[in-house]
Amino acid sequence: MLLLRAVVGRRLPPLTQLRRGSSRFAAGAAAGGGRRGAAPVLAALLGLGAVLAYGERRRRSAQAAKATPAPRYPVYTREEVRRHRSPGDRVWVTHGTEVFDVTDFVELHPGGADKVLLAAGGALEPFWALYAVHSQPHVLELLREYKVGELSPEEAPPSPDAAQDPFAGDPPRHPGLRVNSLKPFNAEPPAELLTESFLTPNELFFTRNHLPVPAVDPGSYRLRVEGPGGRALSLSLPELRSRFPKHEVTATLQCAGNRRAEMSRVRPVKGLPWDIGAISTARWGGARLRDVLLHAGFGERRDGEWHVCFEGLDEDVGGAPYGASIPYGRAVSPDADVLLAYEMNGEELPRDHGFPVRVVVPGVVGARSVKWLRRVAVSPAESPSHWQQNDYKGFCPSVDWDTVDYRTAPAIQELPVQSAITQPRPGAAVPPGELAVKGYAWSGGGRRVVRVDVSLDGGRTWRAAELAGERPAPGRAWAWVLWELRAPVAAGAELEIVCKAVDASYNVQPDTVGPIWNLRGVLSNAWHRVRVTVAR
Amino acid sequence: MLLLRAVVGRRLPPLTQLRRGSSRFAAGAAAGGGRRGAAPVLAALLGLGAVLAYGERRRRSAQAAKATPAPRYPVYTREEVRRHRSPGDRVWVTHGTEVFDVTDFVELHPGGADKVLLAAGGALEPFWALYAVHSQPHVLELLREYKVGELSPEEAPPSPDAAQDPFAGDPPRHPGLRVNSLKPFNAEPPAELLTESFLTPNELFFTRNHLPVPAVDPGSYRLRVEGPGGRALSLSLPELRSRFPKHEVTATLQCAGNRRAEMSRVRPVKGLPWDIGAISTARWGGARLRDVLLHAGFGERRDGEWHVCFEGLDEDVGGAPYGASIPYGRAVSPDADVLLAYEMNGEELPRDHGFPVRVVVPGVVGARSVKWLRRVAVSPAESPSHWQQNDYKGFCPSVDWDTVDYRTAPAIQELPVQSAITQPRPGAAVPPGELAVKGYAWSGGGRRVVRVDVSLDGGRTWRAAELAGERPAPGRAWAWVLWELRAPVAAGAELEIVCKAVDASYNVQPDTVGPIWNLRGVLSNAWHRVRVTVAR
Repeated sequence: MLLLRAVVGRRLPPLTQLRRGSSRFAAGAAAGGGRRGAAPVLAALLGLGAVLAYGERRRRSAQAAKATPAPRYPVYTREEVRRHRSPGDRVWVTHGTEVFDVTDFVELHPGGADKVLLAAGGALEPFWALYAVHSQPHVLELLREYKVGELSPEEAPPSPDAAQDPFAGDPPRHPGLRVNSLKPFNAEPPAELLTESFLTPNELFFTRNHLPVPAVDPGSYRLRVEGPGGRALSLSLPELRSRFPKHEVTATLQCAGNRRAEMSRVRPVKGLPWDIGAISTARWGGARLRDVLLHAGFGERRDGEWHVCFEGLDEDVGGAPYGASIPYGRAVSPDADVLLAYEMNGEELPRDHGFPVRVVVPGVVGARSVKWLRRVAVSPAESPSHWQQNDYKGFCPSVDWDTVDYRTAPAIQELPVQSAITQPRPGAAVPPGELAVKGYAWSGGGRRVVRVDVSLDGGRTWRAAELAGERPAPGRAWAWVLWELRAPVAAGAELEIVCKAVDASYNVQPDTVGPIWNLRGVLSNAWHRVRVTVAR
Repeated sequence: MLLLRAVVGRRLPPLTQLRRGSSRFAAGAAAGGGRRGAAPVLAALLGLGAVLAYGERRRRSAQAAKATPAPRYPVYTREEVRRHRSPGDRVWVTHGTEVFDVTDFVELHPGGADKVLLAAGGALEPFWALYAVHSQPHVLELLREYKVGELSPEEAPPSPDAAQDPFAGDPPRHPGLRVNSLKPFNAEPPAELLTESFLTPNELFFTRNHLPVPAVDPGSYRLRVEGPGGRALSLSLPELRSRFPKHEVTATLQCAGNRRAEMSRVRPVKGLPWDIGAISTARWGGARLRDVLLHAGFGERRDGEWHVCFEGLDEDVGGAPYGASIPYGRAVSPDADVLLAYEMNGEELPRDHGFPVRVVVPGVVGARSVKWLRRVAVSPAESPSHWQQNDYKGFCPSVDWDTVDYRTAPAIQELPVQSAITQPRPGAAVPPGELAVKGYAWSGGGRRVVRVDVSLDGGRTWRAAELAGERPAPGRAWAWVLWELRAPVAAGAELEIVCKAVDASYNVQPDTVGPIWNLRGVLSNAWHRVRVTVAR
């Protein structure tokens, strides 16, 4: 239940059916049957039997409804519900105006206990909205068996204090995100959800904001395009949409700081403590930057060194915008698929992801995919912005804040090969029998991941995982692959699970993070290691 | 002396002045002065004083010639000379018809003792031919001071038995090459010479032959170009040279098996035991493959999957030619610089390197740069050859000869980032004071090497080395960089020197070779480690 995974299909469907907010999900609360019903029976039927189990429950639930009148329930505040977030305190969730104690269902959830707990103490609707399999009558019927109360009628979502806070205008966010910084907002999907679907739901896509989210009026929005050798353009949103063919690309974006938390454990670094979730995948739609540049008269090739600089509408307190650049050759290449995107997974761009227009540079560090795009400038020099010149660069481990000279290192563009384990989680106690290890793998520059090796013994022995993903054109593998390895594990064993990916250039990940340590904690792509114990 | 390095310039000049054979160097043998002369004086003057030292020697040598009559010398055979290859047996070399005992000069050689020893027991001319700095009168004068004999007048180079041996027609090779297999011929330059110059001398360029070297008559040579969607061409050598502009590219080629010897030490693999020298760099000249394909009517872009297949004139006993292919996109890209090369470092291609025409695919494993090229075929499938389908692929360490399925891995094209230490050599006893560590670094796909980190303590601490090389266009860094780190080392210390490179995509080398082990021993690019002791 809750985040029930489809049992018949191995992967969840692309999440283009996503809806926002909870209002559409509050309907239909009605009488339910006896709570905490046939848990042992269900437990015996878990796994492939789960669908049958739901059918059985549904039948008995209907019988119970005929037999007993609707009970009256106590009334709780959201604050009271929020105190029930672990099995020790009981696990409560809300749906509409109803309150449920799902403690005894947690372990029965076909999608995994960890998924249910993400919603503990809060509303189910944001999670159900992501996983359409929950939109079936029997799921709601099953939930009602766990009903313990009603929400107080005075309860409403708290409104933020919009005083002088520059971030007061930021959009609402999904509660499932793991927040690394509220202002500016930086958050990642939890590992438990990261690889549940090939396309990351917009609401869970990792968010890397450097500044407050600008409020953009799409009616008055204009995109400026300019630079020597071309004519200046000022494009409205309808013009961008209608003058250039819509091009769609499935691309993974990754923050340079993904997996920084592991690097910090070697020696402290400056930066947000991203776990393994500063990476997500979407189907992007928009105009090709190439088409816009050629339309403005910039040529297919330019002699000498040229760059395309981007500026966002997000500004710091001094009025300086976020900015970044990419080499001209990539911007204009028909094979590089660089977009001025206005769609994300079939919807208009969410505010956190650059509404109304952002750059998407496939295969390149997320920092160059400038959001809330206001200006595209062809230039003989890289972007002068702080984030191009003095950040997002890699250094030798011996370089510290006293000795760093940003001019000595190139701005990160293509990222190195990367992979991580999303299941099981570190410290987990997994059941004996067959263990499923899952994760993602990706490489920069359109280099396809050709193999993921997994070890259960800390790297002594390896097996190749099964890969799932799109079949890309050569050199244009912009999206990650999801991978899985199933292996028998013995009761009581201590496992150090390790993964490492190989890309189409046969580049591999380094064994350890210490020798790639750098003062900003970027480019953390050593083998990912997860220690678990096998229960007896 | 011998392989004297220029003291005033840090690098040797490009070796376009190379000559083959020794006949042009045998002249000028005449009377010399007292042997084993002013060694202590010279020793005191080594390093920056070496040029002055040679001047001093020259003056005194001229005085000696006036004072004493020409001595008479014993006569030796080449076989007798060959027995003197180490200081314990005395180090003898020949020049022209003269024999010299240079034992006492070995340590005085400004280019390093290790370089002199490469010629021990044999002729100097092949080595001097590579390093033009030796072509100065005072060098020959200095040598004469060490004369101990004359070669027997009957001595002539032994002629090979040309009976039924399919390799009997192979060309003569430079004695400095380290031979891994004579038939077919596979050899690498010794580490001591590998990074002495940015461009590898043709005679020392690593040679990877799969079959006997074909004897090609340039007058009747024709290159066929064909495939669906284009018209068939049959190009003579003059046509290839005159119809298409000559394009020059400096590119490093590396064998997939470079550094296989290190992988074999983990577990045995099948393949030649290459040390670190299956990599070399040349300035290639020829027609662009792109120009030839467009001339034949093949377009800039083709829908679907297309490849360009190459066949050599070298054939196995069954008549099957060596073959390989690359993706069409790379073959036709104006940025990929793929050549049909007929020149190597300003000379026509040597026979061992593909005379009269070879493919050069910059940034890609050497196996695709087919030599003695007879056919270029555009095809919807990769080359059917053994070397494309069932070799030159990477696998998980757990795959063995019982379980390997070649269809599961992609043919190696771009190679991963690589580096190695050429100086000092493993096991060396280096003097205390300042240690110079030198090596090469390179990455596939035109990705520039942006940093080389060097450790003297096995990888605990690192410093960035100084890089030297060409400044390439973005994404077209086809040539290696040579690097150097100078660091003080204390008498008696045991050092584990380690290097690792970082390329423009911030890919790095893995820490250890075990986890990248594969049954064919390819793609060996772990950190390179050299243990040395510092003398007291």
